[in-house]
Amino acid sequence: MTATTIEHDAMRRALDIARNGPRGINPQVGAVLLSPGGDIIAEGWHRGAGTPHAEVDALSQLAPGAARGATAVVTLEPCNHTGRTGPCSEALLDAGVARVVYAVADPNPRSAGGADRLHAAGVEVVQGVCHDEAADLLASWFTVQRLGRPHVTVKWAQSLDGRAAAEDGTSQWITGAEARADVHRRRGRADAIVVGTGTVLADDPSLTAREEDGGLRPHQPIPVVLGRSEVPTDAAVRRHPHSLLQYDGDLDAALADLRERGVHRVFVEGGPTIASAFLRAGLADEMLVYLAPVLLGGSRLALTDLGVPSIDQARRLDVARIERLGDDLLIVARPHDARTPEGEES
Amino acid sequence: MTATTIEHDAMRRALDIARNGPRGINPQVGAVLLSPGGDIIAEGWHRGAGTPHAEVDALSQLAPGAARGATAVVTLEPCNHTGRTGPCSEALLDAGVARVVYAVADPNPRSAGGADRLHAAGVEVVQGVCHDEAADLLASWFTVQRLGRPHVTVKWAQSLDGRAAAEDGTSQWITGAEARADVHRRRGRADAIVVGTGTVLADDPSLTAREEDGGLRPHQPIPVVLGRSEVPTDAAVRRHPHSLLQYDGDLDAALADLRERGVHRVFVEGGPTIASAFLRAGLADEMLVYLAPVLLGGSRLALTDLGVPSIDQARRLDVARIERLGDDLLIVARPHDARTPEGEES
Repeated sequence: MTATTIEHDAMRRALDIARNGPRGINPQVGAVLLSPGGDIIAEGWHRGAGTPHAEVDALSQLAPGAARGATAVVTLEPCNHTGRTGPCSEALLDAGVARVVYAVADPNPRSAGGADRLHAAGVEVVQGVCHDEAADLLASWFTVQRLGRPHVTVKWAQSLDGRAAAEDGTSQWITGAEARADVHRRRGRADAIVVGTGTVLADDPSLTAREEDGGLRPHQPIPVVLGRSEVPTDAAVRRHPHSLLQYDGDLDAALADLRERGVHRVFVEGGPTIASAFLRAGLADEMLVYLAPVLLGGSRLALTDLGVPSIDQARRLDVARIERLGDDLLIVARPHDARTPEGEES
Repeated sequence: MTATTIEHDAMRRALDIARNGPRGINPQVGAVLLSPGGDIIAEGWHRGAGTPHAEVDALSQLAPGAARGATAVVTLEPCNHTGRTGPCSEALLDAGVARVVYAVADPNPRSAGGADRLHAAGVEVVQGVCHDEAADLLASWFTVQRLGRPHVTVKWAQSLDGRAAAEDGTSQWITGAEARADVHRRRGRADAIVVGTGTVLADDPSLTAREEDGGLRPHQPIPVVLGRSEVPTDAAVRRHPHSLLQYDGDLDAALADLRERGVHRVFVEGGPTIASAFLRAGLADEMLVYLAPVLLGGSRLALTDLGVPSIDQARRLDVARIERLGDDLLIVARPHDARTPEGEES
């Protein structure tokens, strides 16, 4: 069964209005209801956890019985799960909807199965309409679903011999301008940027994503500081466009709270203590190692203790990519046993 | 002025007999004397420091006056220097040689100028015959001349984060089979292979260059151990095809002695103390960093103290090449301010 041109147009509309909803622990979803004649009779989108799903939001615009024989066009497979709201498949059946067109399947085993249920109840079901656009919209949410937490990139810069600074603590700049510009581009794609209080106190970073001319990029990650030390009132990070979030050292709790706030992609910038803590906890989905062609020696290590007692427990990586950035190298790596996340670069 | 076919043939003969001489602090040089009719009347080669140079060795085969009007074909420009022997340019003039054909110019400012002196005295001088073959034969000797010591390659294997071993000391194998095979190929091109007594005592290495099937390669580097601890009588290195040389920690003295013994290329394999000592002393002309895609953390660093107090004194490298060897990376680098040596890979 294939979708009509009117249904394709309605799906594009549903994708547009899905973006009205917030990014949060729930996905951004849009729905459009079409009369049997093909006219739009209602629209809805999901406004976040605890509020009605998009289909139910659209149905609620209509008088009882007004959706009988209608077609529901939804960006995500209607759920089959009673959570904080009832199952949407049930709601669509109750409303007498005759046909459901959706873009992407629900990846969550707890809520999936809505399409089957609708089909079993005699509703025409068409899937895959505007699949790629919908998958793009939901890519990072899918990753969060799969991981059960935000996707974490851990970035560090080091000398070839693994040092973050010279013996006296000086480190500006181990890496060159092109490597630093690359970091800012990647900050601009993250939802949150994480450093430790040690880095805040030592380097006073702004944690903004900047253009090469120093101007702010359009999207700014939320600045997140880990650790109990107080962030000074005059710290540069307090002038960030977004308000600072601070957590103690419990990484799981921090990530869970960030997920609730709609953070899908976390960019961990360190320093060595924080980077090592994420690695030690197995919480690094991607590693970006900016490798400068210098040797420093000494005791200021880019990574500290990773909890590796013996060589057979070494943390093996898959090197996805090696880039030359000016004189520096960028090594993009993932844990050896990780699957490539959907919608991620590989 | 160009050389005749007979002179080209004589130069190839001179190159062949040059190899009869030993590799030592002096170059391998051969000489052929041709009668005015083009017949070979004498041959000579240099047998090492303190013995006659090749031209003089050839002249000594002849009765007085027998070289009058002859052509001397020599692989290296006749010297103009009174060292342990008199200047060859003088000896050729005294013998009445009418024409001198040579392959490569003398790179040593103290001994160069023989060609000019001969020319000024009315001798026909032709240079550059079989230049490339002669330069190949002398390449590593030229490097030693330029450096004033053997060429030093420092090799180490490390995890991406700069560790040589896990916390318990285990390190076999950080890098994979392809990286290890590459090390053996390079050992087979070195004249000497250097480790510290710590490595001998900890790892009991054989310091041989082996084929992938475990068999010995045709050329074996001389095993050299640095440090005062005694090498056990049953150490694997004592079963090496060449006798072990041992020096205390004075790197300059060790290199000077190795140079006297004809060692042109030294391959320093560590461990961390020895590798760092060569780097700290500015005695590494080439660095081979075998980088395994693993993280280890902890305290067992591949390099220790390099005497870099501050970032502006970081030891900058030029990365000449990056190779993938199985899962590992090989980074070939040189000190940033070093010139590429003649006859070296670049």
